[in-house]
Amino acid sequence: VAVWPLAQRFGVERIAVSTYQAASGAGASAMAELETQAKEWGEGKLPADFTQDIFGRQYVWNCFSHNSDVDLASGYNEEETKMILETKKIFHDEDVRVTATCVRIPVLRAHCESINVTLKTQATEAEVRDALSEAEGLTVVDDRAANQFPEPVKVSGEWSTHVGRIRMDASQKEGVGVEMFVAGDQLLKGAALNAVQIAELVL
Amino acid sequence: VAVWPLAQRFGVERIAVSTYQAASGAGASAMAELETQAKEWGEGKLPADFTQDIFGRQYVWNCFSHNSDVDLASGYNEEETKMILETKKIFHDEDVRVTATCVRIPVLRAHCESINVTLKTQATEAEVRDALSEAEGLTVVDDRAANQFPEPVKVSGEWSTHVGRIRMDASQKEGVGVEMFVAGDQLLKGAALNAVQIAELVL
Repeated sequence: VAVWPLAQRFGVERIAVSTYQAASGAGASAMAELETQAKEWGEGKLPADFTQDIFGRQYVWNCFSHNSDVDLASGYNEEETKMILETKKIFHDEDVRVTATCVRIPVLRAHCESINVTLKTQATEAEVRDALSEAEGLTVVDDRAANQFPEPVKVSGEWSTHVGRIRMDASQKEGVGVEMFVAGDQLLKGAALNAVQIAELVL
Repeated sequence: VAVWPLAQRFGVERIAVSTYQAASGAGASAMAELETQAKEWGEGKLPADFTQDIFGRQYVWNCFSHNSDVDLASGYNEEETKMILETKKIFHDEDVRVTATCVRIPVLRAHCESINVTLKTQATEAEVRDALSEAEGLTVVDDRAANQFPEPVKVSGEWSTHVGRIRMDASQKEGVGVEMFVAGDQLLKGAALNAVQIAELVL
């Protein structure tokens, strides 16, 4: 969602993503298990005695690699493979290079992503910021002085995706590397809505 | 810690890191605030009424950009700048290119990092795995079939850093991109210990 406006304006060569995914993506029972564990922790139960029916592990005060199956050959899990394939599909670009690391964190609702982008053509930070500000379905939340950036609790219940921490990547050639951090409530619904929005723009 | 053995064996051109940092890095009062918020949530308090003395925001069921000051010009915060400078220093390599995005997640203890590496020379996954397995202070936790990888609660109380999700990066040229996920208890102490270990190996 947040990379698409950059692809349209500057072209995108490569995307490297690390996710911070909520329990909500795994359904209501997963959210309930996280809440149950928090209550058990509050009652003084030991982690070994926490309810672990869904994920089979401690979730409260913990994070872990996404619970989808891992491809034994490549080491990528299904969630990551899905992200890689869907990005190529949405971008209508088989050549865009994508990698992803999907991680669940103890958040009830809304996913975040740390996104590192390599543009095809040089851009200034102001141009990147403009492209993101003007994009449908995106809200720039990026106040450096006040340290206010996208957070799960800020975006919960919102249709738009929040994007912030927008900055030029110090580790890439000048003008082609972009770092950003996004938060969105129920990313799949967001993706569906966005597909509709893109279709509407195209038609 | 986890990239150093790769730098020694294959050379490292670039490192892109996204962190999953615990409350512990901000001290005992920060850990206490997170615990207090969890208890307040359990009592049915509204987020607006949660104790927010340290971070000034909801921490339980949330994640947020690291609380250090953000450089208004570059957009990097102090924690990220420190990681970038310290990596260059530890590697004795001003040319290694590093970028970092530092995020706090609601975990009490132990930090995690999603690390994307670009090697200077080609390597196979087996060679990368060998280099990591043989490194001092590192434990490979990487069971694809069982979906068991590094987690904060697994590494809590351990001196060694856990490394897993070791795989070749599908988005980079063959043999030079490496993805991994590490977890370490009190990374600063780990860094200090590691510096001593490196010094001992060198002397």
